[in-house]
Formats: sequence, C-alpha cells, structure tokens
Amino acid sequence: MRPFEEELKSLNGALQEMGALVAQSIHRAVMALVEKNEDYAHQVVRDEARINQCEIQIDDLATTLIVRESPVAGDMRFLVGAIKINTDLERMGDMAVGIVERAFTSLHQSDLPMEVGFTEMGNLVESMVLTSLDAFVARDAKLAQSVITSDDAIDKIRNTITRQMIDIMKKEPSMVERALDYVLIARRLERIADHATNIAEDVIFMVKGIDVRHRVTAGNPISQ
Amino acid sequence: MRPFEEELKSLNGALQEMGALVAQSIHRAVMALVEKNEDYAHQVVRDEARINQCEIQIDDLATTLIVRESPVAGDMRFLVGAIKINTDLERMGDMAVGIVERAFTSLHQSDLPMEVGFTEMGNLVESMVLTSLDAFVARDAKLAQSVITSDDAIDKIRNTITRQMIDIMKKEPSMVERALDYVLIARRLERIADHATNIAEDVIFMVKGIDVRHRVTAGNPISQ
Repeated sequence: MRPFEEELKSLNGALQEMGALVAQSIHRAVMALVEKNEDYAHQVVRDEARINQCEIQIDDLATTLIVRESPVAGDMRFLVGAIKINTDLERMGDMAVGIVERAFTSLHQSDLPMEVGFTEMGNLVESMVLTSLDAFVARDAKLAQSVITSDDAIDKIRNTITRQMIDIMKKEPSMVERALDYVLIARRLERIADHATNIAEDVIFMVKGIDVRHRVTAGNPISQ
Repeated sequence: MRPFEEELKSLNGALQEMGALVAQSIHRAVMALVEKNEDYAHQVVRDEARINQCEIQIDDLATTLIVRESPVAGDMRFLVGAIKINTDLERMGDMAVGIVERAFTSLHQSDLPMEVGFTEMGNLVESMVLTSLDAFVARDAKLAQSVITSDDAIDKIRNTITRQMIDIMKKEPSMVERALDYVLIARRLERIADHATNIAEDVIFMVKGIDVRHRVTAGNPISQ
C-alpha cells in the first residue's frame, strides 16, 4: 500500500491530466467550428470516451482514499472536492462535444458576414479550466479567485456575441437560424466557464472553509 | 451514535426534502413567468439560500458516514452518489433563479402572440426531478430509466418552442429579443431536465454497476 501523500499526488496528476484533455477538447471544438476543421471535430468525439474513463477512475481513487485513510478535515474536504470537480470536468467534455455537433452542421455552410469572438472566448475558457485545476491541486485560493474574476470577461464576450447576433437576426431574417446557432454556441462556452468557476469556488471553500458558491448575479436583459 | 441504517434514512430524507424544494422552485419559476406572479418569483430567490444550505448539510452527512462506516461496495456507491446528486440538485436551484430573472424582466412586457409550452415543460421537468430522487432513494433502476425516457419528451417540447420562436423572429424583427428570451428559457428548463437525467444515470450505475452515463446523442440542427 502506497503512502497517503503519494496517493494524493497520483490523484492530483489524474485530475490535471483530465483537465488537460478537457482543455484540449475545448480548443479543438472551437477550431473545428472556426476553421471548419473536421479532424479536430472527430478527435473531440473520440476523446470524450477517455474523459469519461478518467471520471470513473478518479471517483474510485478518491473514494478508496476516503475509506482507507479516514483523513482529517482538510484532506477530507480535498477528497470530496475531487469527486465534485471530477463531475464538472466530465460535463465540460459533454459541452465540447455539443459544440462539435454544431461544427459538423456548419462545415458546409457559409459563415456569417462578421468576425465572431469564439477564438478569444475559447482561449479564455481553456485557461480558466487549467487554472481552476492548478488552484485545486495547489490549494491556492488566490489563484482560484482569478478564475472567478475571468468569468466576468466571459459574460462580456457572451453579451457582445449575443448582441451582434440579435442585430443580424433583425436585419436578415434568412440568417435567423445561423445566428441563433451562434448564440447557443456562446452559451455552451459560457457553461464551460461556469463549471470552471464552480471548481474555483469549491477550491476557496476547501481552503478557507467559507462558502463563496452561489453568488447572486444581477439581472440583465440578455444575460441568462 | 445512531445505527447506519437510521443515518441512511436521514440522508434519504434530506435528499428528498431538497428535491421537493427544488421542484417547488421550478414550479414557481415557471408560474412567475407564465402568470407574471411576482410573489412566486421572490419566493424562488429566497428558497435558493435554503437549497444551498441543504447541499452543505448533505455533503457533510454523506462524508461523515463514509469515514465512520467504511461501507461495503453498494453502500459506498450510494454515499458517493449522494454527493454527486446533491451537486445536481443545487445547480437546478440556480437554473430556477435564472428563469426567475427572466420572469422579473417580463413582468411588465406584453406576451408573445402565442401559447408557449412552458407550463407543460415545467410540469414534466418537476416530475423528472422528483422521480429521479425517488429512484435514488429506492435504488430502483427501472424508475430511473423512466426519467431517461422522459428526457426525449423534453427535447421535443424544446424543439417545438425553438421552432415557433424562429418563425416569430423571421416574421417580426421587433420581437427578436423577446423570442430569443423564450428560446433561452426553454434551454434552462432543458438543463434542469439534463440534471435529473444525470441523477437517473447515476442511479442505474449505482444499482447495476454499469455506466449508462454519457449517451451519445445524434446531431440535430436546432437541438444543442
């Protein structure tokens, strides 16, 4: 039986590996969409199975450690946190596949006559995912806070894309479906960012023992 | 110290109580929207705090039991399942608040000139939430399967609403924002249904030890 510290390292490694896979899938999903790259689209679909396998392994490892070690408060919060975070990561993988489904549809369609901020939004979301996991592994509340701050930037990009699409829908009835598609893709990316934010909030809860989850957000006509 | 069986009953009770609260919030959020009922909207916002409290209590209870009892495989899966399901329930509460934010915006706006299936969709989602928890507590895979089946009905209603709204957006540019709002509300309800489906899949995994999570769904131009 390996010492607890080593097992924790191996759990951290598994979470970061899963995070890297998820971040790669997000990147490829956005590239598949923006550059109409079919290979990337297929890779995202293929990697979802690996992400799902990771989820099961991490659940098993965390549960085994809880039972075997009856860890003290801090480590216990860490292990329960791993189970929760794991769920978030797997859901992000699902979202990436969802984006890819739209990418397949759009492979043979013409683009909207404008630059849409998906590349920028995707890059920021990827970095939020990786940073949230780094914060978890390092038990670093400050790093976690930076993820929560980035979420505001995501909301802004999402709002900008939505407003652009509303304009198109009003001016060009024939573009309604395509513009709506883009609104919904922006929402998918936003949902991935929400999961990263959830992870960051779990980290702060774990480190400081205070609950910053469930922030109340102000209403906004097009932010929901 | 109470016997394990009694503690399990108390955990079940807490999950079902949380589920009832969440189902009530979904119901009230839809009523707030459809009937422009402001009282309901405020109650949903108020009850979110209670739902968040429930989440923390259930995490604590499940973790304590895992440590204290080192349960055998079946009970262990149940306790880890409780932690995962708990997260889903809390997220549903967030979605209900999101719907209510739209309801506040729409209180003083005129309705779209058509019947939208939110009441029907909301009722089905509520019943999926309650049934998924019943299935978990009873460890009943067949009941869980019925929730997964209902998810297809949700997708159909969501598609119908989306198509209706696309028609409106094409015909009435001045209605674009309002119609888009309705598309996004339908997505919120669908996301709640997705969480109920996640719970149902966890139940089947727990009971049968097989993984039905992560079903691949076929692409569809407006279903994402």
